[in-house]
Amino acid sequence: MPDVLVAGASGYAGALAARLVQRHPEFHLRAVTSRSDAGRRLSELYPHHRVDLVLEPIDLDEHSDVDAAIVAYPHGASAPLVAALHERGVRVVDLSADFRLRDLAVYDATYGEHGAPQLLPDAVYGLPELYREQLRGADLVAGPGCFPTAALLALAPLARAGLVGGVVIDAKTGVSGAGRAATDVTHFVSINENISPYKVGAHRHTPEIEQELAVLGADLPISFTPHLVPVDQGELISAYVDLSGPLDQAALVGLFRDAYEDEPFVELYDTPPGVFDVQGTNMCRIHVHAEERTGRALVFAAIDNLWKGTSSQAIQSLNLMYGYDEETGLW
Amino acid sequence: MPDVLVAGASGYAGALAARLVQRHPEFHLRAVTSRSDAGRRLSELYPHHRVDLVLEPIDLDEHSDVDAAIVAYPHGASAPLVAALHERGVRVVDLSADFRLRDLAVYDATYGEHGAPQLLPDAVYGLPELYREQLRGADLVAGPGCFPTAALLALAPLARAGLVGGVVIDAKTGVSGAGRAATDVTHFVSINENISPYKVGAHRHTPEIEQELAVLGADLPISFTPHLVPVDQGELISAYVDLSGPLDQAALVGLFRDAYEDEPFVELYDTPPGVFDVQGTNMCRIHVHAEERTGRALVFAAIDNLWKGTSSQAIQSLNLMYGYDEETGLW
Amino acid sequence: MPDVLVAGASGYAGALAARLVQRHPEFHLRAVTSRSDAGRRLSELYPHHRVDLVLEPIDLDEHSDVDAAIVAYPHGASAPLVAALHERGVRVVDLSADFRLRDLAVYDATYGEHGAPQLLPDAVYGLPELYREQLRGADLVAGPGCFPTAALLALAPLARAGLVGGVVIDAKTGVSGAGRAATDVTHFVSINENISPYKVGAHRHTPEIEQELAVLGADLPISFTPHLVPVDQGELISAYVDLSGPLDQAALVGLFRDAYEDEPFVELYDTPPGVFDVQGTNMCRIHVHAEERTGRALVFAAIDNLWKGTSSQAIQSLNLMYGYDEETGLW
Amino acid sequence: MPDVLVAGASGYAGALAARLVQRHPEFHLRAVTSRSDAGRRLSELYPHHRVDLVLEPIDLDEHSDVDAAIVAYPHGASAPLVAALHERGVRVVDLSADFRLRDLAVYDATYGEHGAPQLLPDAVYGLPELYREQLRGADLVAGPGCFPTAALLALAPLARAGLVGGVVIDAKTGVSGAGRAATDVTHFVSINENISPYKVGAHRHTPEIEQELAVLGADLPISFTPHLVPVDQGELISAYVDLSGPLDQAALVGLFRDAYEDEPFVELYDTPPGVFDVQGTNMCRIHVHAEERTGRALVFAAIDNLWKGTSSQAIQSLNLMYGYDEETGLW
Repeated sequence: MPDVLVAGASGYAGALAARLVQRHPEFHLRAVTSRSDAGRRLSELYPHHRVDLVLEPIDLDEHSDVDAAIVAYPHGASAPLVAALHERGVRVVDLSADFRLRDLAVYDATYGEHGAPQLLPDAVYGLPELYREQLRGADLVAGPGCFPTAALLALAPLARAGLVGGVVIDAKTGVSGAGRAATDVTHFVSINENISPYKVGAHRHTPEIEQELAVLGADLPISFTPHLVPVDQGELISAYVDLSGPLDQAALVGLFRDAYEDEPFVELYDTPPGVFDVQGTNMCRIHVHAEERTGRALVFAAIDNLWKGTSSQAIQSLNLMYGYDEETGLW
Repeated sequence: MPDVLVAGASGYAGALAARLVQRHPEFHLRAVTSRSDAGRRLSELYPHHRVDLVLEPIDLDEHSDVDAAIVAYPHGASAPLVAALHERGVRVVDLSADFRLRDLAVYDATYGEHGAPQLLPDAVYGLPELYREQLRGADLVAGPGCFPTAALLALAPLARAGLVGGVVIDAKTGVSGAGRAATDVTHFVSINENISPYKVGAHRHTPEIEQELAVLGADLPISFTPHLVPVDQGELISAYVDLSGPLDQAALVGLFRDAYEDEPFVELYDTPPGVFDVQGTNMCRIHVHAEERTGRALVFAAIDNLWKGTSSQAIQSLNLMYGYDEETGLW
Repeated sequence: MPDVLVAGASGYAGALAARLVQRHPEFHLRAVTSRSDAGRRLSELYPHHRVDLVLEPIDLDEHSDVDAAIVAYPHGASAPLVAALHERGVRVVDLSADFRLRDLAVYDATYGEHGAPQLLPDAVYGLPELYREQLRGADLVAGPGCFPTAALLALAPLARAGLVGGVVIDAKTGVSGAGRAATDVTHFVSINENISPYKVGAHRHTPEIEQELAVLGADLPISFTPHLVPVDQGELISAYVDLSGPLDQAALVGLFRDAYEDEPFVELYDTPPGVFDVQGTNMCRIHVHAEERTGRALVFAAIDNLWKGTSSQAIQSLNLMYGYDEETGLW
Repeated sequence: MPDVLVAGASGYAGALAARLVQRHPEFHLRAVTSRSDAGRRLSELYPHHRVDLVLEPIDLDEHSDVDAAIVAYPHGASAPLVAALHERGVRVVDLSADFRLRDLAVYDATYGEHGAPQLLPDAVYGLPELYREQLRGADLVAGPGCFPTAALLALAPLARAGLVGGVVIDAKTGVSGAGRAATDVTHFVSINENISPYKVGAHRHTPEIEQELAVLGADLPISFTPHLVPVDQGELISAYVDLSGPLDQAALVGLFRDAYEDEPFVELYDTPPGVFDVQGTNMCRIHVHAEERTGRALVFAAIDNLWKGTSSQAIQSLNLMYGYDEETGLW
């Protein structure tokens, strides 16, 4: 049974990853590390996860003696640790943005100088529904951003069919997406009874979505705007696609059914999804609507930003990397 | 001092209208009526409004002896009462959809048969920022829907400038917009920790927005999708406009500044608005962003759906109808 | 593997019970029934439970051909169905109040006439921490109320030690405790931004708590007041106990440690519990404080009202009834 | 018209005080100061208060040239500023704990060394319902804590009647009571879907409540435990009073009616109060229940912790200090 390290386990994503590894029948949670909370028990920070391990300071000599690692560091801080683990033969799923962008110049413009650019070509984009074959046996996986996860699942069938003439993505997310840091933004009083857009015109997930859409056949600039709403976990993508050709409801549904009918973690539904439907799961629930009046397709995709958007998707990738059934430990 | 009747005061909109009339220095709240809760005190249903009047059953003989009425009935039920009051010389602000649409065929297709079609030509659309002159001295005012209020304030400057090539409106609203009726949808457990789109492709406010956009010079079908989020009061419109010509940030801001700099209830802001900023006020707070990369203008408009979106805007109209300062009783 | 029926599965408690049975490794979920929603899929009502069965109308001929049943009917309606199933040899865990009170006169005064009083002597009170031995092999189990569950776990060690001189219980609960019915009380707008006591001096769980406290050695009238707060699931009991003898913090902690150190589902903690710590679990988390200044012991107990307070506790009892490990299917 | 300074206006209490002064017909808001946010506009921090002044660093030479000041500093930091203003002839309402406790030893034990002990005898406790006469013309007023405000209004009639044999106060409060500081505790994710007690057995408001209860005739140690719930503003006190003599419902109601029938800001109600009923007001809403079964009186009191609990009550005191009608500017 492979030993797994979770580095950066004091944040929301790392803590959930630790819980999922601990309960996984085929992995062993070897250690959890934290830069800010070393010495405290993870169960003290997150009682509901019930992972009763002490957070340790990272120690490469000791901690690189594992088979795999999930790294939940902030972008920029992640690359050096991932490189060090990779060099020591540890298979890594990185949850930061550091290995998602293939074009170094785009990375630098978006996040600043890259700490391990030599590894960019090796990284597989960890969205199993799009990169399943490449993930089998991969050594280095870049976990997608939560917004790109839902957005790409919402848009892939249309992009592959060459039908995308324009894209507006309006996203709504719960507060856990903003991380554990206590700030003016995450204060209860700032969030409660409020709805607000943020990073208008400048969110870092935009180039990531555009990169992957281009791979799928839709190479165009998109509008992407996230909004913060008073919810803990959950994310809804509302995608408005200008169609480059005619498409009625039956054809639109058919396109998505063909794409996803064998996917264990994508559900196509007749009614609009709510994020509560998928909270605490690895599911992406999708609803499509052909708006013939405007020539647009409307696609709504709901995920749990911490699960399918981050940590459970990392387990899904890890399952593939080790040749396990993709669903292991995810129900 | 004109005597004012509020009919349908047991719903959220009517109750707030009653409170605003009661505190207004130039109007006298004569009576409040209710079909479902006659006999109860309004202060029992809504303690925080502190309007200590008994809800009466409507009695045209008695209640038409007022100067003005705010009618807060559901669409369809409203037209006959409005017609009866109008016939008796009462000036009316109607909060339902019954007098908003100018094309009877569109009304019938959207809401069913109209109860007083002969009055449609007389009704003034009660959005003071667009119809101020017509509202002065008007006898019959159709209060706009809450979504059209924010959407039209967000789009009017672009529509008048002939710059609108395509429109996607993604709206988020608090639960009071769904009304006081206790249903599966409005149950706390359905709303809490949830985000969900509703009436996808079929919301009744779409033809209303399209009608008024056409008047402003943008005659085109639009996409409009509302989403329900766990908030009491508040509504955010995120409008994505395909520009038919080039427009940079300075020009976009200039367009909106010219349109709104003298408006007492429209605020142009440098940062994206949150609905909490306008909760309990008659303000509409707007932020604009020229996204040159995609050729779109992004416009965000926040209102309180019960205030500027419904009841306080009705007072704003009533002020104009009586020649008072438009801001009277609204601070 | 025993076949299990869940009757009344369209309510919150029944739906969760169905999900827990379905995922249980030693039980088979045979059917789910509903009086109000027969014909609909359970997965349509509760997508997040992912129980894809059609709700059937109850049919004793067909449905009594199971080994066990969990009955989630309202009090009063439950007794006849429980009696019918019991007569046909089905082992039953009843989630209603119908078999909790041993004194028929108290039942009648609290809930009205009883539908199957002859069964009262047979029913075992389904709180495993207090009635473990009686539950092994039982045929009829009365699942405790959610408030009594937490209150009795909070008070049992003190009651058994003869230290209880007076009891005030102040409870706070999430809205799911009020059930799925859409009412003025459960409307989002009624709950959000609100905190309110209800059934002051008259809650039906009071005699149930008093009955069981008397069994434990504390036969006295208590004050019990529940409060509704804007939370989905979760319940906190704050118990203020006038001590009949001296007790310092070490002795108080010792008393609780002795009582619960071997209990798999009761956690004693050094810090006050939050309901989020136990949400979605069968745990009861307890914190005790000896307030020597006032001669009181303060005990705080947090549970998930739908899990340990109702449905997962029913599974815990069912495990005991079948001789399985008590924790089976509960992690 | 007296010039008023609000010092410490970047916190919740100070910001609201500034808004209330600005809208007050008889006071002029001269300046707002802040130690942490000097240079920013108050309207940028709190858009919904609409006070468009720049926060200044405190400057005694300049700012003591006012008639009155509301000081919203943390305890300990407040005393020196209050003393300096007092010395310069400025009338002060202090919102901190620094002048609430009459016994210096109790202050020191609770909050640390006092910065201006010589002023303690001069300070009037700013609860107008108890100290109205002393407040008329006072120069230095100590605004009560929010919990003591509600607790004392709930208990005063019983204490004065000599009926208090024991007191348990269980309080529930919204998050604004924890202040504007962004911490783990105030993070949205920590509060949402949570209910938790805090400062068990050790809250600093306990000696304040006991001091004032003793003045009223009930000199005894009390149990007081606050709980944090997911609400912005609002506070509910549930008081359980062991009666030292018999009292039925009619007598209990009579006692409270006599005490409060002429109070403009205390409402006695037949049904339990919700905090939403008083949100954004200076009201305290009270419900009493004689529980003859246990010999206790249950008293529930709801206030808005930032309004009647802090800032609007400061205005109420300021009105009295200046001889204005107590209700001025508070509706």
